[in-house]
Amino acid sequence: MEKKVDHSCTLDKIISLCKRRGFVYQSSEIYGGQAGAWDYGPLGVNLKKNIQAAWWKEMTQLHDDVVGLDASIFMHHKTWEASGHVGHFSDPMIDCTECKARFRADQLIEDFCSAHSIVPPKPVDTMSHEEMKAFIDEKGIHCPTCGKHNYTDVREFNLMFKTHLGPVATDASLIYLRPETCQGIFVDFKNIVQSNRMKIPFGVAQVGKSFRNEIIFKNFIFRTCEFEQMEMEYFCKEGTDVETFERWRKERWAFYLKYGIAESHLQWHHHDKLAHYAKDAYDVQYKFPIGFEEIEGIHNRTDFDLTQHSKFSGKDMSYIDQEDGNKSFIPYVIETSAGLNRNLLMFLCEAYEEENVGTDGKDDYRTVLHFDPRLAPVTVAVLPLMKKDGLAEKAQEIRNMLKEDFMTDYDQSGTVGKRYRRQDEIGTPYCVTVDYDTLDSASPNYETVTVRFRDSMKQERVKLSELTGFIHNAIRNYKSVVRD
Amino acid sequence: MEKKVDHSCTLDKIISLCKRRGFVYQSSEIYGGQAGAWDYGPLGVNLKKNIQAAWWKEMTQLHDDVVGLDASIFMHHKTWEASGHVGHFSDPMIDCTECKARFRADQLIEDFCSAHSIVPPKPVDTMSHEEMKAFIDEKGIHCPTCGKHNYTDVREFNLMFKTHLGPVATDASLIYLRPETCQGIFVDFKNIVQSNRMKIPFGVAQVGKSFRNEIIFKNFIFRTCEFEQMEMEYFCKEGTDVETFERWRKERWAFYLKYGIAESHLQWHHHDKLAHYAKDAYDVQYKFPIGFEEIEGIHNRTDFDLTQHSKFSGKDMSYIDQEDGNKSFIPYVIETSAGLNRNLLMFLCEAYEEENVGTDGKDDYRTVLHFDPRLAPVTVAVLPLMKKDGLAEKAQEIRNMLKEDFMTDYDQSGTVGKRYRRQDEIGTPYCVTVDYDTLDSASPNYETVTVRFRDSMKQERVKLSELTGFIHNAIRNYKSVVRD
Repeated sequence: MEKKVDHSCTLDKIISLCKRRGFVYQSSEIYGGQAGAWDYGPLGVNLKKNIQAAWWKEMTQLHDDVVGLDASIFMHHKTWEASGHVGHFSDPMIDCTECKARFRADQLIEDFCSAHSIVPPKPVDTMSHEEMKAFIDEKGIHCPTCGKHNYTDVREFNLMFKTHLGPVATDASLIYLRPETCQGIFVDFKNIVQSNRMKIPFGVAQVGKSFRNEIIFKNFIFRTCEFEQMEMEYFCKEGTDVETFERWRKERWAFYLKYGIAESHLQWHHHDKLAHYAKDAYDVQYKFPIGFEEIEGIHNRTDFDLTQHSKFSGKDMSYIDQEDGNKSFIPYVIETSAGLNRNLLMFLCEAYEEENVGTDGKDDYRTVLHFDPRLAPVTVAVLPLMKKDGLAEKAQEIRNMLKEDFMTDYDQSGTVGKRYRRQDEIGTPYCVTVDYDTLDSASPNYETVTVRFRDSMKQERVKLSELTGFIHNAIRNYKSVVRD
Repeated sequence: MEKKVDHSCTLDKIISLCKRRGFVYQSSEIYGGQAGAWDYGPLGVNLKKNIQAAWWKEMTQLHDDVVGLDASIFMHHKTWEASGHVGHFSDPMIDCTECKARFRADQLIEDFCSAHSIVPPKPVDTMSHEEMKAFIDEKGIHCPTCGKHNYTDVREFNLMFKTHLGPVATDASLIYLRPETCQGIFVDFKNIVQSNRMKIPFGVAQVGKSFRNEIIFKNFIFRTCEFEQMEMEYFCKEGTDVETFERWRKERWAFYLKYGIAESHLQWHHHDKLAHYAKDAYDVQYKFPIGFEEIEGIHNRTDFDLTQHSKFSGKDMSYIDQEDGNKSFIPYVIETSAGLNRNLLMFLCEAYEEENVGTDGKDDYRTVLHFDPRLAPVTVAVLPLMKKDGLAEKAQEIRNMLKEDFMTDYDQSGTVGKRYRRQDEIGTPYCVTVDYDTLDSASPNYETVTVRFRDSMKQERVKLSELTGFIHNAIRNYKSVVRD
């Protein structure tokens, strides 16, 4: 009996393709790897930059009412007192008093229950510290390190990374790695209003790294301790916040469709339990191979953050409305907060297809990434039919012509068919093939090349003099392949 | 007597302009500021992104032999043992045993000598730890904090920021914030070669944040504890390293000229004293208002880094030369390492002019930033002559047409002359003015606008249907204003 081959997209296949073709490597792999950190290889860095550029263009260049910001990772530590992170951004921890090992108390309970097929009396994430401790004692859960049972109470462990500025490790020199980028926007609010004469309503967009000392990493680049956020904080007047919230939900949803995500692969998740600052919150979830998971959150943060920073800094963070008799008020904030790394994983999964391109009833599978050409790591690959007879030189000349406008690749090894497949696998939307006709002044195809399209695999003969414009047009008119 | 006004570029003027117009703010200003950290406002972030994009395009898109990478900030701590940073990346520190305060020993000596007009027996940076301690004791230098004189020996303080991954602060969980981006390239060397079938010689380019726990920050964004590097490591065979070094010196020099830096404002600084890994090193220095200072270093790092990582990881980091009978060797590395923040400061200083545009012998100064249009934070500003009579609506329509291609601005307040000056001050190369002729179907200038050029202040009437192409052409054919 024939073995059935699985041609669906799985996370393992994506991870393997990422490593094999240079999208994503494990960080510090030669040293056994750095947990929760990943490196973006030659193709991954281009894909990531293109997603970031698409978001940045969408949010700032195409929106008259949104400007950009790039705040530093190091911020004054009071920022995180004001934001509530010092007080509330934590996990429950427990120490073994025998061997000094430390664990997440909820994890200890879940691992024990799962190993012994016990159902805890209530969901672990709803247990109080006292209930966790009581359960651990009642079941006599042993320390996974030393095997004894002698624990401290359960305490909260803050998820912010700490370091110290300057040579002395004191409270005064304490500095956190920011756990979210948005606080930079709030803290700079007045500066932005003044320097750029902003009038409410307006937004501030920012892309940057954040850090969270997560104990558990999972699902490849989906949850890591170092990650990139694409956040926009939109400042508006109280009372207009609900309609503004709805506006941005629509806009952000449309962004994903614009770049080729099938609508059937997206869903809204409404938060029942809201964060302490929030009035309303929705996640955009994408149908990953591991199930629907969050790629972006839209939050109504109310006037919480600016009010807190007013209190903690002693500076008035109100906006003065010159168009309404200089009345001053603390604006409401609608936040759109997307994960760049999760976006990258989504665009990879969405693009991935093992497509049966066989003819005459024969199976022939190709792996292809149907990226939107604006996101593809390589836009054009130039392929000489043969290395010899001046074809390679001509192909190189054409590449030189194209590379001012496009990210290009060049490949002269193996059959053209194999080279097309290699480009399909990394999602190159256009291959340009140089053949003998290109060089033959007697041919009607003299000074033309074949442009081969990744999705349709169709080919078209194009004049060299029109090639750059032809590709620009193809990018502009690209229609994404919609698949289920 | 008339007061002479200084119209030269000074660092204070740049700092003031940066804050006033939204290029750069002090980080966490409402909390009294975070030392050594700066935030890039709406204009600064665009300028920084454009410089980064120019570098990235130059190094990867335009060089067939260079690919990109984006490694994580968190790397395995052994990376920094191998690189020599754990052992050697440090400053000399001394503790007061009375009050426990800690100081840089060299700084303590320099401050004392400067306060008492004493010349130290030899340059402080050439003193050994024992010589520093002896000098401090001999002069009886008091603790600046408690006033007593009772010190520890001088010891080295490492400049890497430390933090801990996970809840337990042990040696095993120790993690450094990378002090340079290049080690990510070295550690990933084998992965890049394999996944992208790289053949030597080739380069790997990367832009990213690095962190150094500097005790002294100075000169605005010039020396900070959090900064962005644009580094390229070029792998070549020993014996070709000297010519490769010269090639990249030429290329990097040419890059700055390409984006409008006057050659007379650049100079080479040859390192007499080389770092432990280096065979040769040159800095590109730019003539800042504070004097010539480094903006980029070109280093011959030899096979030091890959050899070290082979030793410390136990993995063979050799390159196998398939074109030379599978001989294997550790490649030499030529590094080009530019500071993005310093580049930004350079492009600001270079662009800055207080230009006398007065006529008939009358002085009339405008502040103008002569950015290359590819770097300017705003490319086109659209200005309706008046708000009324449909001009504002038409201007908005034109902006909507342009913003798919360009970063645009819109300004309708004050006289057109004042608006031009405001755009000059932020370096907008093209202003598009909409007037009554634009709307008047009876006028020969119907459906045309005035394009006003920042540098020459000349104006040209352009058809709306040709405006996008006109601006693209103007950018392509831009000639930078060369000034001394």
